[in-house]
Amino acid sequence: MSDQSTAGPLPFSAEKLDGYMEQAGIDTLIVSSKHNLAYLLGGYRHHFFAVADAIGVSRYLPLLVYRKGHPEQAAYIANRNEKDSIANRAAEGRPLWPTAIRPAASGVMDAMALAMDHIRAIGAAADRIGVETSFLPWAAGQALAQAFPLHGLTDANRPLERLRAVKTAQELDRLREASERVVGAMQAVMRSIRPGMSKRAIEQSLRREEEKRGLVFEYALITLGSSLNRAPSDQVCREGDIMSLDSGGNLDGYIGDLCRMAVLGEPDGELEDLLGEVRNIQDAVRAPVRPGLRGGDLFSIAQAALSTSPLRSHMSFVAHGMGLVSHEAPRLTAQGPIPYPADDADSPLEAGMVLSVETTLLHPRRGFIKLEDTIAVTRDGHVGYGDEGRAWTRAGRS
Amino acid sequence: MSDQSTAGPLPFSAEKLDGYMEQAGIDTLIVSSKHNLAYLLGGYRHHFFAVADAIGVSRYLPLLVYRKGHPEQAAYIANRNEKDSIANRAAEGRPLWPTAIRPAASGVMDAMALAMDHIRAIGAAADRIGVETSFLPWAAGQALAQAFPLHGLTDANRPLERLRAVKTAQELDRLREASERVVGAMQAVMRSIRPGMSKRAIEQSLRREEEKRGLVFEYALITLGSSLNRAPSDQVCREGDIMSLDSGGNLDGYIGDLCRMAVLGEPDGELEDLLGEVRNIQDAVRAPVRPGLRGGDLFSIAQAALSTSPLRSHMSFVAHGMGLVSHEAPRLTAQGPIPYPADDADSPLEAGMVLSVETTLLHPRRGFIKLEDTIAVTRDGHVGYGDEGRAWTRAGRS
Repeated sequence: MSDQSTAGPLPFSAEKLDGYMEQAGIDTLIVSSKHNLAYLLGGYRHHFFAVADAIGVSRYLPLLVYRKGHPEQAAYIANRNEKDSIANRAAEGRPLWPTAIRPAASGVMDAMALAMDHIRAIGAAADRIGVETSFLPWAAGQALAQAFPLHGLTDANRPLERLRAVKTAQELDRLREASERVVGAMQAVMRSIRPGMSKRAIEQSLRREEEKRGLVFEYALITLGSSLNRAPSDQVCREGDIMSLDSGGNLDGYIGDLCRMAVLGEPDGELEDLLGEVRNIQDAVRAPVRPGLRGGDLFSIAQAALSTSPLRSHMSFVAHGMGLVSHEAPRLTAQGPIPYPADDADSPLEAGMVLSVETTLLHPRRGFIKLEDTIAVTRDGHVGYGDEGRAWTRAGRS
Repeated sequence: MSDQSTAGPLPFSAEKLDGYMEQAGIDTLIVSSKHNLAYLLGGYRHHFFAVADAIGVSRYLPLLVYRKGHPEQAAYIANRNEKDSIANRAAEGRPLWPTAIRPAASGVMDAMALAMDHIRAIGAAADRIGVETSFLPWAAGQALAQAFPLHGLTDANRPLERLRAVKTAQELDRLREASERVVGAMQAVMRSIRPGMSKRAIEQSLRREEEKRGLVFEYALITLGSSLNRAPSDQVCREGDIMSLDSGGNLDGYIGDLCRMAVLGEPDGELEDLLGEVRNIQDAVRAPVRPGLRGGDLFSIAQAALSTSPLRSHMSFVAHGMGLVSHEAPRLTAQGPIPYPADDADSPLEAGMVLSVETTLLHPRRGFIKLEDTIAVTRDGHVGYGDEGRAWTRAGRS
């Protein structure tokens, strides 16, 4: 039952995971999503399938079997071509921690068959089994549900998300780096744009700047002028236009996701006021962040700040945890663009949680004005990651 | 029933798809994988989820409902934040072809609920339904199977794969470009490496060279010296070492995947002979490729060439279709690293098919020596994509 009986130290707290599994009614987990596997395996991702997963008649399906209270009974079911990666980690003195490693699968069905063999071998066939129901392929879930019909399959998303909510020092470092590099890339793009550049060209420029900084570019949401459309297009920027750049780029899977504003020229007084209003709300929400603050209180603070703003009918606020997934625990609100149960609204914030805080102004005349900041909860308060450039950046001033 | 009743022209042959669906026993398809959606929607991919798909309590799940013989009844169920992308395509005069577009989903369950509503609305509730059983999330498949229990769910992978097997001129252009750029990136890396560089550093260098050429870097399999281990590690290259670089990079989703060889210094006579042997087999297999050749015959040719080689016990040969997926139809053999039913072995090759042809020599003393080439079937024969550098490249000679 102790970590000493695994091939290496566990990169997460088994005690926490066991507790969250117990609360979710799960005895044995079968984890299949790339983000949760990378988390549970201490950052390990098979390099061959880092980008895509379709191959041949099926797809890549790595599986980790974890039984509550028994890390020494865990198994990692890997693709056959993962042998070399697994061997290299062991040779480098950082073996994957599960003692049972089976790099023998080619697709979905043989991977799940190996996982089920392991479940039988450790005597867990009568366990309540949890899977990531939004990520496990249907064929694999079907085989599992038919083989072990006793309790059905429980969704394991929530216990795994809760486990990830408080970040380690190393994870915080990745998130800080990713945030700073995304903002650095945005500022480089803002300095380099010229009238006549299209949103598609700006997106490609941002991709290159993020890649130059070692990030995996995920996406950019861009507006120009008074348009509220944020998708890539051939719209070109013109002298005097404002521009919003909202981009996600990841570093070892950890996402930096921020929004910054630029103007092609000098911001007039109204623009200064509008962005100031957005920043005031961001700053009001950030100020009280510390361990112990009730997460849902961020919304009362934002609502209070919004209610006094003459622009309130055009403004919206949202905040949510972030990490390996761009919207994850703590879940603070059911508001916002993504319907999200506010399961963590009544829980206190903890040191090591990382929040994305977003205020958006859809101005009917001046356009899309938004700030998105990343706030890490520290032992005695908070710290912003990538706080550069929260005022108007003068575009085209390289 | 004609294409005129859709919002735009279909980017694929409905007649072909209908035929393959009929053979697979499918009346209505619900397509969910990114590669098949991009194919059926004429290259459309929602930019926000091009890299990842996890978000919030669930994940991105775009769905295309297609009923055999009724393209005018198709529906595309999109994520809520896809509205802008869809609007931009329409504004640019290339609207998505389904007349029903529902950018209203946030996750797996609401997306599937919208698809099921549509199936009921078009009177297809008693149809035999096909899904990609290795890609559709379990929760979505479960909801679907419970709502329409009449026939169960059939795997739609094969009819969709067959539809993709013969490439259009535009797809061929993407595959040729991707192949040439991957080989160009490899040659740049080979010229720049110096003794003391690690496999990890070489991988990062290749990533940068592919990204510089506009590719999305997918993976690199690298060997140095006499080692047969192809995964990233801190192993460094030394004067005299051979190096194999096998890498995949995609252009608009279409993969370039080739393997080339380098040596840090001058290849000796034995190395020249060994790579010559590998190239002979590659060339023997390529020579007869033309429309009408039975696909499985490539293996008889390879076996005949292998059987006369003194190195036959250390050599292996594989060939397979490639395109949006690195191993796809035509399926030519059950041999090779990926168990693959040879369903297309008895069918004639057709103009527009693209094959990846691979000969690998695991030499017990000299190391990993491999060529992987990309061969497109043309109207009167074949053409190699990215045929540069099939001899030893002298590394470090920039």
